[in-house]
Amino acid sequence: MDERSLHRLIGTVIAPERLEDDCAVIPCGDLAMVASTDMLHETTDFPAGMTDWQVGWMAVAVTLSDIASMGAAPGQVLLAVGLDRPQRLQGIMEGARDCCIAFGAELVGGDLDAHRELTIVSTGLGTVEPEHLARRRGARPGDVIAVTGPLGEAQAALNGYDRHTKELLEPRPRVKEGQALGRAGVSAMMDISDGLALSLHDLLAVNDCGFSIDTALLPLPAGVPEGEGRALALYGGGDFELLFCIPPAALPVPGVAAHLIGEVIVERAVLADGEPLERRGYLHEWKG
Amino acid sequence: MDERSLHRLIGTVIAPERLEDDCAVIPCGDLAMVASTDMLHETTDFPAGMTDWQVGWMAVAVTLSDIASMGAAPGQVLLAVGLDRPQRLQGIMEGARDCCIAFGAELVGGDLDAHRELTIVSTGLGTVEPEHLARRRGARPGDVIAVTGPLGEAQAALNGYDRHTKELLEPRPRVKEGQALGRAGVSAMMDISDGLALSLHDLLAVNDCGFSIDTALLPLPAGVPEGEGRALALYGGGDFELLFCIPPAALPVPGVAAHLIGEVIVERAVLADGEPLERRGYLHEWKG
Repeated sequence: MDERSLHRLIGTVIAPERLEDDCAVIPCGDLAMVASTDMLHETTDFPAGMTDWQVGWMAVAVTLSDIASMGAAPGQVLLAVGLDRPQRLQGIMEGARDCCIAFGAELVGGDLDAHRELTIVSTGLGTVEPEHLARRRGARPGDVIAVTGPLGEAQAALNGYDRHTKELLEPRPRVKEGQALGRAGVSAMMDISDGLALSLHDLLAVNDCGFSIDTALLPLPAGVPEGEGRALALYGGGDFELLFCIPPAALPVPGVAAHLIGEVIVERAVLADGEPLERRGYLHEWKG
Repeated sequence: MDERSLHRLIGTVIAPERLEDDCAVIPCGDLAMVASTDMLHETTDFPAGMTDWQVGWMAVAVTLSDIASMGAAPGQVLLAVGLDRPQRLQGIMEGARDCCIAFGAELVGGDLDAHRELTIVSTGLGTVEPEHLARRRGARPGDVIAVTGPLGEAQAALNGYDRHTKELLEPRPRVKEGQALGRAGVSAMMDISDGLALSLHDLLAVNDCGFSIDTALLPLPAGVPEGEGRALALYGGGDFELLFCIPPAALPVPGVAAHLIGEVIVERAVLADGEPLERRGYLHEWKG
């Protein structure tokens, strides 16, 4: 049973349309509020050698990336920390605070608990004018498919390419880019935390069209042989870039480096160089 | 180093006035939004024998209790679940949903992860007219101190008094009472999750006055000998009642069973029957 199978089960309890996006959407006066919660824990999510400051930074960055993917401006972050050793708290909190400051959010509260394994849940709130809200659903044939930067860098670092260590350990969510793209009228958007291939299949699941990419166009991690780099870009986890679909006439979007990688097609399929692209990447798996 | 020492450390990173209440307060159009996040995990927070449904119910109930303590109406709940066994998810989600429905909230999303120890973080949002927002700070000498129901029932169940098992395992947050008390003009309010004695000391920490209770007035758990019952009421954890201070003229509050237990005094102390009341109760402790 993998994570996505469990998500289907959740769809029997939470209204399925609630689960399509990176954030829940909540009315808030004249604005739309978006809310996201992310659980990270040591063995799965924090690569060996991370400092406590980086752990705190990362925990906030994943949530701000979800907010960015909706086109929203970050507002408040809450942090629940299950601490294995109390000495770690200061570094974690400072990293979380610094990531908030860097992207215009405020750390407003949280919860604290003792835990055998360090576990952090960050919850982020953001706001956006309803007409600029970006969602996963909405892609239309003829839109181009684009990403905001190189793919596969985090996985490259895990494979030993040390020049990408900073992208792995201190990721920078595309907060300004997300808002600019929301205002520019993207038809669909999400962040690529589990790899491009899985993300394209996630878009497929909620759209009535398909997605065709040209792997020669993928922005690859620097310093990695091309074949390996392409595999990392397609299947590697840990990236913080945005994946979006947009009418070609809406490009360029000021302040956004849009790397075009393909186009939205009528056929309901995910294609790479004309062939079906396997739905695999970073998935939590259970034996149970 | 106990939980409150760590909270002081957090006060060097998060603005301390942000940490005074059970929820963070966030502007939301003409309303105040309150937000709370709570981490629970198996060994510490879920008594042996709990069903998965009860685990889900409890995870939501703790967050709704925080919202109630601010005088707010529950809105949305997000649930991050670190699952030890995938078979548990359905029961947990159904318990969470049922608790949301019972108290007028909606389960709108969450996150899912694999974890060695079942770990759940629930985040709740609520709204309230700013003039009806209740906080811990604001008690005034001459106010009465009151609680919304019997204290010590959860701890009584842990001590073997099975008639209180339901209060322990399926707690009912005082959601309607919290809103009625906010509208009625409580001067200070919080929920009593870690025991009455600790809660009174928490009020002391953020107010410029003191709190004097009469232990003969405490509403005790039924079926427990009086001496034991009084100790459970003062120091037991797991209760979901609200503790509040209110001008006597504002009583009674329709729909709220207010048990008067004492009065707010000028002297900055917590007194029980005229003697200083020890600051102890349910605290997470580390050896580190």
